[in-house]
Amino acid sequence: MQAAPSIQKLLDELERLPGVGPKSAQRMAYYLLNADKASALRLAEAITEVKEAVRFCSRCFNYAEGELCEICASSKRDQSAICVVEEPRDIPPIERTAVFAGVYHVLGGALSPMEGVGPDDLRVAELLKRLAAEDVTEVVLATNPNIEGETTAAYLARLIKPLGITVTRPASGLPVGGDLEFADEVTLGRALEARRPL
Amino acid sequence: MQAAPSIQKLLDELERLPGVGPKSAQRMAYYLLNADKASALRLAEAITEVKEAVRFCSRCFNYAEGELCEICASSKRDQSAICVVEEPRDIPPIERTAVFAGVYHVLGGALSPMEGVGPDDLRVAELLKRLAAEDVTEVVLATNPNIEGETTAAYLARLIKPLGITVTRPASGLPVGGDLEFADEVTLGRALEARRPL
Repeated sequence: MQAAPSIQKLLDELERLPGVGPKSAQRMAYYLLNADKASALRLAEAITEVKEAVRFCSRCFNYAEGELCEICASSKRDQSAICVVEEPRDIPPIERTAVFAGVYHVLGGALSPMEGVGPDDLRVAELLKRLAAEDVTEVVLATNPNIEGETTAAYLARLIKPLGITVTRPASGLPVGGDLEFADEVTLGRALEARRPL
Repeated sequence: MQAAPSIQKLLDELERLPGVGPKSAQRMAYYLLNADKASALRLAEAITEVKEAVRFCSRCFNYAEGELCEICASSKRDQSAICVVEEPRDIPPIERTAVFAGVYHVLGGALSPMEGVGPDDLRVAELLKRLAAEDVTEVVLATNPNIEGETTAAYLARLIKPLGITVTRPASGLPVGGDLEFADEVTLGRALEARRPL
């Protein structure tokens, strides 16, 4: 005896979401079943709306509702600094630091010979075109601090430095608030190599 | 700099779901943004469909797509045994044990003097009407094994036993103080098999 077909369908769809197993899908489904209709439908509408309204920014390839994303369209951003990230989801955490006031460029992934991802699969040509057309003085390579991200940063640095543009990368080091005892060797090694006078 | 309005709206709606915090809402939102449109819209449709199609079974008050739920409508179920539960969400875990072949009755909650829930707030009259009209030989009181559930079971037992109907309750073995919804199948199955007259 399984659930009614429409409930089963909802359970199946909820379980596709990342981090959602059968138990949490069930809790969500019963929450939606119990919720008043308007409130449950707001979620359905939000999903529909996001798929209708959101596309890629024509300049930086962040998610956007218009031709340009809100960051590219803002007059308050420093257009001379571009922060290169792998995915749109990497932008909100950087924004929350309030440290970077420039604009972004979303590569759409990282170089990975293992998975057959080469420069042509990323928005590298689009980045170089921006560097040629815009008045950029610094490129921050904020790809992930893992093998693919490091490889991608090294590759892009080799392409961009000859253009006379400053290329930087966020520092690797010990996480603030963490315990030295629990730091992994690679991180601790990097932190020691990059030690600075106090 | 916050997310685009439609993305923010989706994040807000996802965060309303039980067990979903800002981080998991973000993972889900990016999953839906990345997913192909048809696949993302299937979730929106499933929510809409469930709110259109699902109502309460007119007999047992389980979720149903027609006049009767699939269990009440089935010719394979033993109509002489009624399992009384608090909520529709309590039915699937009992069904998964495959130990109970009868039908159900959903009270819509449990007695709780603290929260001002009395017999008139539950579907007790509807249960008594069924017992008068249908040929029932056993009522299994599968309310939750916590104070409210025990109180409700004791109250119903006092009402039903004088009708000459056997009243049982799943054996202890269920963790006391827990929720029936989260019991594992084996424990719940054992408890049902070992049900004893009150």
